[in-house]
Amino acid sequence: MRARFVLTPDEIYLNGNSLGALPRTVASRLAEVVEREWGESLARSWTAGSWFSAPERVGDKIAAIIGARPGEVLACDSTTIVLAKLLAGALRARPGRKVILTTSTNFPTDLYAARGVARLLGSAEVRCVEPAALVAELDETVAVLSLTHVDFRTGEMFDLPGLTAAAHEAGALALWDLSHSAGAVVVGCDEHGVDLAVGCGYKYLNGGPGAPAFLYVREEHQDMIDNPLPGWLGHEAPFDMSLDYRPASGIRRFLTSTPAILGLSALEAALDCWGEVTIEQVRRKSVQLSELFIAALEERLPGVFELASPREPERRGSQVSLRHPEARMIVAALAERGVIGDFRVPDVCRLGFGALYLSFTDAFAAAERLVAVMESGAFRQARFARAGP
Amino acid sequence: MRARFVLTPDEIYLNGNSLGALPRTVASRLAEVVEREWGESLARSWTAGSWFSAPERVGDKIAAIIGARPGEVLACDSTTIVLAKLLAGALRARPGRKVILTTSTNFPTDLYAARGVARLLGSAEVRCVEPAALVAELDETVAVLSLTHVDFRTGEMFDLPGLTAAAHEAGALALWDLSHSAGAVVVGCDEHGVDLAVGCGYKYLNGGPGAPAFLYVREEHQDMIDNPLPGWLGHEAPFDMSLDYRPASGIRRFLTSTPAILGLSALEAALDCWGEVTIEQVRRKSVQLSELFIAALEERLPGVFELASPREPERRGSQVSLRHPEARMIVAALAERGVIGDFRVPDVCRLGFGALYLSFTDAFAAAERLVAVMESGAFRQARFARAGP
Repeated sequence: MRARFVLTPDEIYLNGNSLGALPRTVASRLAEVVEREWGESLARSWTAGSWFSAPERVGDKIAAIIGARPGEVLACDSTTIVLAKLLAGALRARPGRKVILTTSTNFPTDLYAARGVARLLGSAEVRCVEPAALVAELDETVAVLSLTHVDFRTGEMFDLPGLTAAAHEAGALALWDLSHSAGAVVVGCDEHGVDLAVGCGYKYLNGGPGAPAFLYVREEHQDMIDNPLPGWLGHEAPFDMSLDYRPASGIRRFLTSTPAILGLSALEAALDCWGEVTIEQVRRKSVQLSELFIAALEERLPGVFELASPREPERRGSQVSLRHPEARMIVAALAERGVIGDFRVPDVCRLGFGALYLSFTDAFAAAERLVAVMESGAFRQARFARAGP
Repeated sequence: MRARFVLTPDEIYLNGNSLGALPRTVASRLAEVVEREWGESLARSWTAGSWFSAPERVGDKIAAIIGARPGEVLACDSTTIVLAKLLAGALRARPGRKVILTTSTNFPTDLYAARGVARLLGSAEVRCVEPAALVAELDETVAVLSLTHVDFRTGEMFDLPGLTAAAHEAGALALWDLSHSAGAVVVGCDEHGVDLAVGCGYKYLNGGPGAPAFLYVREEHQDMIDNPLPGWLGHEAPFDMSLDYRPASGIRRFLTSTPAILGLSALEAALDCWGEVTIEQVRRKSVQLSELFIAALEERLPGVFELASPREPERRGSQVSLRHPEARMIVAALAERGVIGDFRVPDVCRLGFGALYLSFTDAFAAAERLVAVMESGAFRQARFARAGP
């Protein structure tokens, strides 16, 4: 799969959990969409071509990666918007319950979205607790348990099957943010009874900067949960231009506006490689890569870093997070040596392993260069420049 | 300007109000973004490059076209989403008032968005009246007057200065949907005291299929109106990863998620031509084109069509809508003769004049071909295929 990605020679890209590397098929696919579908066929591409069905078609390709069935996933909007949609939908689907239960370790925008929705609805509230307290807090007031599956800072992976079951036992819906999971770990939405999920298109799915997000609504819930931000493309008959909103059946009702075709086309091209590789294979390679990297550091730099990620691979996503008081400068010094990682406040070096395009040599060389940075003290002179969201 | 667009020889494209034609600069700009900014610089393009500021930078270019000041416009999300954001924001900025006043002729998705927001907020309601009743309905219960400036079906243009003033007199905010105005007619947001506006990037702004939308918030309102769908990119300090949302100052607080860079890049490239042409020039040409077309039909096909658009150019946007019981088949027969228009239920031929790329010859030839279709009765045999949103 590595040959399918554009990679800079002698650079080791450990930031694919921020922005995935560029798949080679994207440029030509986009050129075709722009020059032929837009330039020549123009608006006819909406129906004569492939545009109208793009959100569902791309959604089905993502469904295969997160263990969902065809017709359960839609690629659209942005992650925070789809999260707000499903949170509001979930609250309305559980009348009499008013709490969104989440953790204080959640990705901040997930908290902003939850509080924003609670404020819009007036009667709802966000209960924000430590991860260890989640099960105890799952009571009859909780409408939806909203968690990010893999922690953006530490890479720690929640027990998705167990917490989903616990939510159900308490009569709540389980909504998972799969931003750091989709394309990286085995999720199994259907197998584990996940009710709702959202995720990001530009991390391990390699859809490009600001790629469309995705939302998942379990098939049996689709008629029970409303789209709180209805729009004409989610209408049963968009071109009837009816004054009354009648939701489409199935997943399409969660669509709001005209699909972002350029972003969807890049994402779709990026998903093509998944026809030849399974998420189980990618996960296996990811575990091997991060294990190799951690083992090398344990041997060469014992005690230098605190491992912020779980040591057991089954509790770890596809990233290795290292705590160090000089984390910011270490990330900068690594970048000067061609190892691109990311820094997260206050003290985390975040190194993501995009297993579709990284080799064992990459993982080993990254560890070697980190050893060189630490042993030489080079990080004390490095110049920091943030790599991006 | 015509030379800057990709146009199919012998085809006359009168559907630019659905999807604008392809500007020649888009393909090369997108290739640069994909191959160099994404492929080589990767996540570093967020800060070292131009990505992070794209929503405001593109917004400023749109501001110049709609008569807004720099820092008043943001390019982001989709039209229905930004409309929902500003409607909810407007309702909260006018506590004690609960009505969204709009018309039953509004674009349906604007009504769906308004009702969606009213339902989310619980206490709000949508009052939907005939255009002629608007001023009488502007009472002390109205929080926001939400209108589409140019009617999608007829091309009729509301009196934006007069209705904005009437809204203010009643203590309401005025929110204008400029989807069929931006890039087509002179809007003058600041001059006329418009409070809020939204619009579409893929019609007369030529940003491509599903291009990002835009929102306008008058400078003096920006600290008074909340973003009801807050997200990390609208945070004062996104990379602090703070658990508490503190809105950025200025227009940026209305941002929610990571910007859609591919769509924004195409839209930005499409906006480049506006450095050399003014909206006043484009509007003058648009009026000349549609006047020529209407005059030709009045002379050659008297009484055949009912002109659904106003006859006075100052009350008409950049489209000519013709009513005819066989409208659907007439649009199809025109397409067979290389004139691409659009059909809208139940009986409207909708012909948009993208004045940046259409010539007088185009307008004249389109009329000639319509005459041929009607005189030959060819439309009775045509095969209809919808052109798209």
